[in-house]
Amino acid sequence: MANQQKKVSDAVIKRLPRYFRYLADLKENNVLRISSKALSEKMGFTASQIRQDLSCFGGFGQQGYGYNVESLYNELRKILGVDKTYGIIIIGAGNLGQAIANHGKFEKRGYFLKGIFDVSKDLIGNKINGIEIMPIDKLSGFIKANHIDIAVLTVPRNVTGKVADDIVEMGIKGIWNFSAMDLKVPDDVVVENVHLSDSIMVLGYKIKNN
Amino acid sequence: MANQQKKVSDAVIKRLPRYFRYLADLKENNVLRISSKALSEKMGFTASQIRQDLSCFGGFGQQGYGYNVESLYNELRKILGVDKTYGIIIIGAGNLGQAIANHGKFEKRGYFLKGIFDVSKDLIGNKINGIEIMPIDKLSGFIKANHIDIAVLTVPRNVTGKVADDIVEMGIKGIWNFSAMDLKVPDDVVVENVHLSDSIMVLGYKIKNN
Repeated sequence: MANQQKKVSDAVIKRLPRYFRYLADLKENNVLRISSKALSEKMGFTASQIRQDLSCFGGFGQQGYGYNVESLYNELRKILGVDKTYGIIIIGAGNLGQAIANHGKFEKRGYFLKGIFDVSKDLIGNKINGIEIMPIDKLSGFIKANHIDIAVLTVPRNVTGKVADDIVEMGIKGIWNFSAMDLKVPDDVVVENVHLSDSIMVLGYKIKNN
Repeated sequence: MANQQKKVSDAVIKRLPRYFRYLADLKENNVLRISSKALSEKMGFTASQIRQDLSCFGGFGQQGYGYNVESLYNELRKILGVDKTYGIIIIGAGNLGQAIANHGKFEKRGYFLKGIFDVSKDLIGNKINGIEIMPIDKLSGFIKANHIDIAVLTVPRNVTGKVADDIVEMGIKGIWNFSAMDLKVPDDVVVENVHLSDSIMVLGYKIKNN
């Protein structure tokens, strides 16, 4: 199964949190089961797409019955690793770093903020969401002393490459990159990008061509 | 050509800003031309992927010469609509709304912030990036009086659906949605989502399965 999951395409992986969100909503509304057709109408995917996506992970539907909401929710939880906890740090305590630090949803999903770092003397010592902003030269020691899975990079673009190299050397294996640049990292490090400038340009393109 | 562009797949569209970023960097570094092979090494796409993507828009490469950086850059600018300007408003002046209002990059790409709206009396009247935060009941009049192409939704999840319905009724045709929910909008309205919770869950999945 672990090997099988390795082959799941990026496109399917990107859709998984969406399935998880819809299943979480259904579960909250005490829906016990749902057909792939009904789920497809809710989500805007085709029923066959849904069956195909979920079959990548073993296929939990039963013909004529549909999906059991709670068990599919629990499977997705496990697949996505929401049943685990992750330690995260934020590097760059500007507006975006602060917005992420204050984002209440992440803890609910198992992502716990452990530290915030910045170079600015005006920011160091301030607290965001109960966590003190520390100077960047404490970063290496902090990573050694704490179990940190993910570093959130919200630093200016011109220093992003350097900071990424540094934290990879310090042992970070997961980077959530908010800079409008692609990082070069070793194979044992994963990067997930949130390129806001790219996203707004995609929107502009769609408006122009709609 | 306009009809042709309509058929371009979402996957290609999502890659366009990335091409644009790399071409902008090459141009800034005074590179005059580049082969699809060299571009592929820089970007991490295959050369054939690059040729295929760009051929969707007419194909600007010449065999044995490669791409002329400046003309490809200019074409991408036009395709993405970066040669146009867009009026944007932000609804929800919390941390995330403020981070977006302060994001310097968007103006460079033609996206001009015209107004910020919130319901909180503590925020109304404050200025972010020189723009005053206005009460939400001014929204309708403001949209009528100004040319607004895009509304950025950074409101709490539980009101996002209602706000989206309202602004669509007010004539907004482009929504940049930061709530962890999918919006139902008419066909003449386009939505681009930035689902941060989804993104961090994808990262968690990749860390677990790397």
